[in-house]
Amino acid sequence: MFKDIITNVRQKKPLIHCITNYVTVNNVANILLACGGSPIMADALEEVEEITGICSGLDVNIGTLNARTIQSMEAAARRAHALGHTTVLDPVGAGASKLRTDTAKNLLATGYFQVIRGNMSEIRALAGDAHTTRGVDAAVADAVTEEDLDAAIHFIQDFQAAHQTVVAVTGAIDLVAGPAGTYIIRNGHPMMSAITGTGCMLTAVMTAFCAANPDRITEAAAAAVAAMGLCGERAYEKTVQARAGTGSFCMYLIDAMSQIDDTMLAEGRRVTYHEQT
Amino acid sequence: MFKDIITNVRQKKPLIHCITNYVTVNNVANILLACGGSPIMADALEEVEEITGICSGLDVNIGTLNARTIQSMEAAARRAHALGHTTVLDPVGAGASKLRTDTAKNLLATGYFQVIRGNMSEIRALAGDAHTTRGVDAAVADAVTEEDLDAAIHFIQDFQAAHQTVVAVTGAIDLVAGPAGTYIIRNGHPMMSAITGTGCMLTAVMTAFCAANPDRITEAAAAAVAAMGLCGERAYEKTVQARAGTGSFCMYLIDAMSQIDDTMLAEGRRVTYHEQT
Amino acid sequence: MFKDIITNVRQKKPLIHCITNYVTVNNVANILLACGGSPIMADALEEVEEITGICSGLDVNIGTLNARTIQSMEAAARRAHALGHTTVLDPVGAGASKLRTDTAKNLLATGYFQVIRGNMSEIRALAGDAHTTRGVDAAVADAVTEEDLDAAIHFIQDFQAAHQTVVAVTGAIDLVAGPAGTYIIRNGHPMMSAITGTGCMLTAVMTAFCAANPDRITEAAAAAVAAMGLCGERAYEKTVQARAGTGSFCMYLIDAMSQIDDTMLAEGRRVTYHEQT
Repeated sequence: MFKDIITNVRQKKPLIHCITNYVTVNNVANILLACGGSPIMADALEEVEEITGICSGLDVNIGTLNARTIQSMEAAARRAHALGHTTVLDPVGAGASKLRTDTAKNLLATGYFQVIRGNMSEIRALAGDAHTTRGVDAAVADAVTEEDLDAAIHFIQDFQAAHQTVVAVTGAIDLVAGPAGTYIIRNGHPMMSAITGTGCMLTAVMTAFCAANPDRITEAAAAAVAAMGLCGERAYEKTVQARAGTGSFCMYLIDAMSQIDDTMLAEGRRVTYHEQT
Repeated sequence: MFKDIITNVRQKKPLIHCITNYVTVNNVANILLACGGSPIMADALEEVEEITGICSGLDVNIGTLNARTIQSMEAAARRAHALGHTTVLDPVGAGASKLRTDTAKNLLATGYFQVIRGNMSEIRALAGDAHTTRGVDAAVADAVTEEDLDAAIHFIQDFQAAHQTVVAVTGAIDLVAGPAGTYIIRNGHPMMSAITGTGCMLTAVMTAFCAANPDRITEAAAAAVAAMGLCGERAYEKTVQARAGTGSFCMYLIDAMSQIDDTMLAEGRRVTYHEQT
Repeated sequence: MFKDIITNVRQKKPLIHCITNYVTVNNVANILLACGGSPIMADALEEVEEITGICSGLDVNIGTLNARTIQSMEAAARRAHALGHTTVLDPVGAGASKLRTDTAKNLLATGYFQVIRGNMSEIRALAGDAHTTRGVDAAVADAVTEEDLDAAIHFIQDFQAAHQTVVAVTGAIDLVAGPAGTYIIRNGHPMMSAITGTGCMLTAVMTAFCAANPDRITEAAAAAVAAMGLCGERAYEKTVQARAGTGSFCMYLIDAMSQIDDTMLAEGRRVTYHEQT
């Protein structure tokens, strides 16, 4: 499981086109570099098709969408899809406003995206469930716990089948569902939700992992989730040692991503795999 | 003074809608999380009313305003005011351009804002004084010092009475004036002006403090100023210990906010209160 | 060489107007403060001329350009040029899209810019060379090495003469060409390309250095390159000592800029100067 996935990223250095929010964009660029990818941010409609053409992956994140950038997202995704590039959608805040829910649904409905990554509230919003999103964070009622794990797996496998896209749902327990089965990932630390951008950073890393391992994107997406969680665990250890707080934690998270390799991931991952039933 | 104010933020975890500049937005989001709040950034006119509706506080910061976002600021503030939410205005760079001065004056004139926080040059620009703003920093002539403290208190009490809004003016000495009196706060460290975003971060923290303590917003605004100042003092100590510079200082500032509690604030604050005369 | 250049920045505290990308803008603002300058970011067409009028330097960076901000870049540059202010252009990603190449060429053709700073792929794209830009990073074929140093010097001296602007090309070896000659700078560390924004930060620091030393801008631009490289070396040492990664490196880089002075620069610089032949 996960054999050579990080090594492939570091060797291929995939160029990733990001149309992403301005809140976490600096951390997104830095963690992409840290994992071995190379970021380029471009959101002008006049250039997004050309930019995505020189890349091998596209990360669309609707965190601070507006009418102008929504157009760019669609155009870039159409082009990236036509070129067979890795395309990942992060529906930040779907459920929190009609604009976000509709935009995410429309982007998903194009069929251009190979992978979608969000928290359970966002994915439920796209599935039409009547749960309430708490802003950009998952509602407490939507947390994936050991008790409701089977139901959660069932839900995202259905979502995967309906939309023909790999689905990554992150929270206390993370799930990544592809056509053949579902990875259950128990890496990570609660402090990851005490900083902004953990999800955005993960989506970008996932885009790079999939772009460098295009023949096994479900596995690459799961490896990204496990790697990010492992980095969160290491960042937490360093934060405690330094008697530091959440500012330091964010920096240690990027540090950890720049230092991780396949061996460390193999030793530190806590992942099980359930074949599709 | 300041009893349970931070505890209330941590317990209520107020969701804060920020329409803020793209320069300091990541630090704003992270310090909001660090103090116990939860941020959501959204500036598209199509969604700001809906987004602010699910929040309990609105932070409007004009640091990188443009024609599109000015509309969104007005719409969000109208809605937040109608819902009785905490609303805080940060008139970044008022006095530095007609666009900024006019926008801040227009927003203030709506009556939608419960609190305004700026440096003395910005507040003077809104009062129509002919002082010169030095970009986004206060002009030296506008610094509040022990010598001109009485005049400064008089000025902001007049401003408070004229606009019926709590006024927080920050600098070497900080002043927070409400209808019943004025807090004088002597926490903080000069290194806070050697990084970008201290003011923006404070405004966001202030929004969360007020949103979680809506029955005593003058006191909550003053507590936010004192807490931020105390975090600046702690961050400076850590920076000196580490023989570090301003990059580290910024991170330590967020660390400190994630670690502060009401007891630390009670022990570290240097605050006096003058009743309105 | 470089006498009092940093001291002048710290004494004059030049206010720098930045129209820059939202990816690295926070680090740009913080490193401007760290070197002794003072940043103001403003990109609305309605205010850019007025804002640039109260500054002494203008930094135009096309990293996340769009139709709206391109207009603002032109208007601000026209005004800054008319006022005799320092004006520096950073053509981020020129060569990666027609929009970027055309915008950078158009801005350069105005004659408003005193200095242009980019990597070799970007400068080659502006010269009409048929090399390929790899996103926002220089193509490997464009790296300046000891072997092709003479050819690179010749190329940028021609570019300088053709466009009558100081040209700074950064990479493993950095070159800064003015009308009288070319500085060759061998400071820096490869880890600087493992984080986002090193180039953007350098351009901003260069603007401040030139604005505070307007009678010798080629020398001031070269001093900025050497200072940034030296800070990169120090940041690398601290990163190794702390067994840290690229997240820490970025912070240490800003730390180092806040601590550098003319004496440290004189002792640490590795710079030679070749008179124009």
